[in-house]
Amino acid sequence: MRRVRGIGEVRVRVNKPFEPGEWIVLIAANPQRPRRWIARVGEKFSTADGVFDLQGLIGQMPGSSVASHLGQRLFAFRPTAADWVMHLIKRQTQITYPKEMGYILVRAGIGPGSVVIESGSGSGASTLLFALAVGDNGHVFSYEQRPEFSQLAQQNVARAGVAHRVTFKVKDIAEGFDERDADAVFLDVREPWHYLEHAVTALASGGTLVILVPTTNQVSETLRALPALPLIDLEVVELLLRHYKPNPERLRPEDRMVAHTAFLIFARKHSL
Amino acid sequence: MRRVRGIGEVRVRVNKPFEPGEWIVLIAANPQRPRRWIARVGEKFSTADGVFDLQGLIGQMPGSSVASHLGQRLFAFRPTAADWVMHLIKRQTQITYPKEMGYILVRAGIGPGSVVIESGSGSGASTLLFALAVGDNGHVFSYEQRPEFSQLAQQNVARAGVAHRVTFKVKDIAEGFDERDADAVFLDVREPWHYLEHAVTALASGGTLVILVPTTNQVSETLRALPALPLIDLEVVELLLRHYKPNPERLRPEDRMVAHTAFLIFARKHSL
Amino acid sequence: MRRVRGIGEVRVRVNKPFEPGEWIVLIAANPQRPRRWIARVGEKFSTADGVFDLQGLIGQMPGSSVASHLGQRLFAFRPTAADWVMHLIKRQTQITYPKEMGYILVRAGIGPGSVVIESGSGSGASTLLFALAVGDNGHVFSYEQRPEFSQLAQQNVARAGVAHRVTFKVKDIAEGFDERDADAVFLDVREPWHYLEHAVTALASGGTLVILVPTTNQVSETLRALPALPLIDLEVVELLLRHYKPNPERLRPEDRMVAHTAFLIFARKHSL
Amino acid sequence: MRRVRGIGEVRVRVNKPFEPGEWIVLIAANPQRPRRWIARVGEKFSTADGVFDLQGLIGQMPGSSVASHLGQRLFAFRPTAADWVMHLIKRQTQITYPKEMGYILVRAGIGPGSVVIESGSGSGASTLLFALAVGDNGHVFSYEQRPEFSQLAQQNVARAGVAHRVTFKVKDIAEGFDERDADAVFLDVREPWHYLEHAVTALASGGTLVILVPTTNQVSETLRALPALPLIDLEVVELLLRHYKPNPERLRPEDRMVAHTAFLIFARKHSL
Repeated sequence: MRRVRGIGEVRVRVNKPFEPGEWIVLIAANPQRPRRWIARVGEKFSTADGVFDLQGLIGQMPGSSVASHLGQRLFAFRPTAADWVMHLIKRQTQITYPKEMGYILVRAGIGPGSVVIESGSGSGASTLLFALAVGDNGHVFSYEQRPEFSQLAQQNVARAGVAHRVTFKVKDIAEGFDERDADAVFLDVREPWHYLEHAVTALASGGTLVILVPTTNQVSETLRALPALPLIDLEVVELLLRHYKPNPERLRPEDRMVAHTAFLIFARKHSL
Repeated sequence: MRRVRGIGEVRVRVNKPFEPGEWIVLIAANPQRPRRWIARVGEKFSTADGVFDLQGLIGQMPGSSVASHLGQRLFAFRPTAADWVMHLIKRQTQITYPKEMGYILVRAGIGPGSVVIESGSGSGASTLLFALAVGDNGHVFSYEQRPEFSQLAQQNVARAGVAHRVTFKVKDIAEGFDERDADAVFLDVREPWHYLEHAVTALASGGTLVILVPTTNQVSETLRALPALPLIDLEVVELLLRHYKPNPERLRPEDRMVAHTAFLIFARKHSL
Repeated sequence: MRRVRGIGEVRVRVNKPFEPGEWIVLIAANPQRPRRWIARVGEKFSTADGVFDLQGLIGQMPGSSVASHLGQRLFAFRPTAADWVMHLIKRQTQITYPKEMGYILVRAGIGPGSVVIESGSGSGASTLLFALAVGDNGHVFSYEQRPEFSQLAQQNVARAGVAHRVTFKVKDIAEGFDERDADAVFLDVREPWHYLEHAVTALASGGTLVILVPTTNQVSETLRALPALPLIDLEVVELLLRHYKPNPERLRPEDRMVAHTAFLIFARKHSL
Repeated sequence: MRRVRGIGEVRVRVNKPFEPGEWIVLIAANPQRPRRWIARVGEKFSTADGVFDLQGLIGQMPGSSVASHLGQRLFAFRPTAADWVMHLIKRQTQITYPKEMGYILVRAGIGPGSVVIESGSGSGASTLLFALAVGDNGHVFSYEQRPEFSQLAQQNVARAGVAHRVTFKVKDIAEGFDERDADAVFLDVREPWHYLEHAVTALASGGTLVILVPTTNQVSETLRALPALPLIDLEVVELLLRHYKPNPERLRPEDRMVAHTAFLIFARKHSL
């Protein structure tokens, strides 16, 4: 297998030892309902099961375990994109969920080398997932009007070691985006219909506009504004993720689930 | 923005002109219910709306349009990952859907630089999506027992210009995988429980095992076999994708939907 | 067990022999994917499997079978409420589905002795289900502006033998309902917000208003109008029914499903 | 409108005054997220909002309000079938939900005059809903092995005033049912496959067997046993109920929902 070069690519290979200060996911050994925590390699970490010295993880491979002074055991993993979003990033906003982010990547064709513009940065969840997906040859431009959120997003992205893939801008997008020819523009704002023209201007011809809104009224309002723009191939969807209890003899869905996060709207820019 | 190097990264940037022979998606202008076709730049292409000469698209940007001899107009786009899976690849098997593939990428942390092993190749839908996600610094090893399917998968992956990212093997995985230290192993086979040990052997410590099966019986049978292996953080899910009619004044879900494609099982390898 | 009196109660007991002219459901013997037809006892009936003489069913019990001149066999059943709605009634409109109707009955407390007002009659699907549920001690008042639909609804209700439980009115409900003190009022009209006051006037204090609309815009518009009225205990829901392939060794949901029929809005009248 | 006779029919008419000792639902006036309590007419009742003297409700109509000594107001309603199941009955078991019960009634054709056999009684939720649906001309036979549950179920059914419509039996159904010619048999037991023969024996020809089980394994096990029996028209379903936040300007599904209660299996008895 190939050698991995550069800090960016490093992150998506699990096959290298833990470094000091690296953020990790710790998972308790109970397979039925795993509890999990976040921590940093090299620090001390306490739960009801005792104190864990994470110094011992330095140089160990992901998947290694660490025991508390009471003999309880946790397993340490390098976070995946879903871990970052669900467990590791500090949140002060509604976050984008892995189910939506995964579909956005595949539907909008975002991958290594892609250039993505988003607004707003929020807690940086989508920023981070885009940054992980585009690699060192791609780039993310993340707009946010509120400085404190932009800082939070930057901090979260930096934890994952991909800050160099993102340009954060504290700026009102009512003035438009500074970039052009983006492969995808992602709008996660309260009133996206005000910014559709700016988004289309920033998109490359053939690029994909992605809009995330939680309410049906916002979907309608956005759909009303779209026909004025050079967009085609409209799609409005929602995704539902249902977990099952992993009991082979009593297999059944979990009793409760997340019933709604957001609606997604997709359209492609044409050059007519 | 950065310059794009190499054939692999090329594919995820929409911002470059069409080349002769490139596969494209053609979309009719009706925004409510877009019809779409696949074709190659430079060829002649006919629908009920007339003959379209795609020679004129050479050197044009994605999002450009082409008119038939009857004056009808189609828009040409560079395919996204979802386009490849849903519209472009030739299929002879049940394919993996964008909703599942997107979640797999995010949940298993597959991105630029990742090394993924999969079995079977099938029509190459998942192969292609993994190849698009891992970039030129990553790699996909795709096992398939039936030579005709392996060839179909190779052909589909080649169409997308990422054949150099995939090693195809015509081989029964009952003999095990040749590779070690994979970031993720994806099993899309009828009886995955027979191959779990081999999959775990091929995984890097900390890597993610992903299993796709259509029936509840297969989920139970797989779950029965998992506890014998060094795996943790078990998750069993299904994803539902619901489309909405994009009519702002009469917004409602589509009348019918795909109700089931598959269940996904995830687990992580630990090194105890 | 008790003796059954009167034509109304007759219908919900399957335990009595078929009568001439009675409408029945015929089901082919293949258990995996049953085909079904409707017919009348005493008539001749043809399928690709031959001619069936349904004269022989007179005096037979439901569940009996009949053979064609080619030796193929069908089973004859007395229709349930779901059969009437899904298979037996002639439709010229979008019909209300068993999943919604069942929830309406239970949520609004409609049962033997209830008095229900509905508009419009449509094809009579909801009319019939209400009539079957309220018994000979209850009553349904069904309003419809278009005479041809009212006639269709009457014909469908008569087929089920419960015409005596329904009063049909060809009338624009913009003028209000003639009745008062109804246990439930069901509005299945395009713009229910115009008729809410009339509906509330017709309801008994403590009665339940039920509104069925297909689009989110109609839900919003209705919700905007409700606060002006003496209503409480608002509920907005949708129901999804997912079928499974009944194969014990390959149990899984059907590939496709009805993704949307309608939203239901419930509220109760208070007397303040 | 017709006069209502007998205690049974009384219950489904909301249009009559409250009687002393009658069980009621009390609903607070906030329309967005109604809180609710159960109580008996004539008693004293306390919440954080003060003491409510429910003596004043005697002779009042459902929908009337009552004020606490602190001036807070609650509205009093006669319970619907759904209220009984969700709010009023004392539970010591997993209960059957309105969404499933409604579909069972409509799918199995249970209505006024129907004779239904069920096992087990559990907390009496399904018993009560069947009793409410079959009216005074129908009857429910409810089997339960554990005397304490049978008593609980009897108490819950008595509260709703329909005890005369139900015969409770404390009995192991491994010995079979005492009745014959039932319109429907409902099995809500852990291992229904052991009792299918008895259920079919108790069913009238043409009657409907209904089985409720929470796990996929139980569905498979039941499906394995069915082909040996004179049953046809097999259906396996699950129902999902999704609530929406009733805000007209921000309409969206609730954040979380009940993701799973049970699978339902239906089949009809034929006489071959």
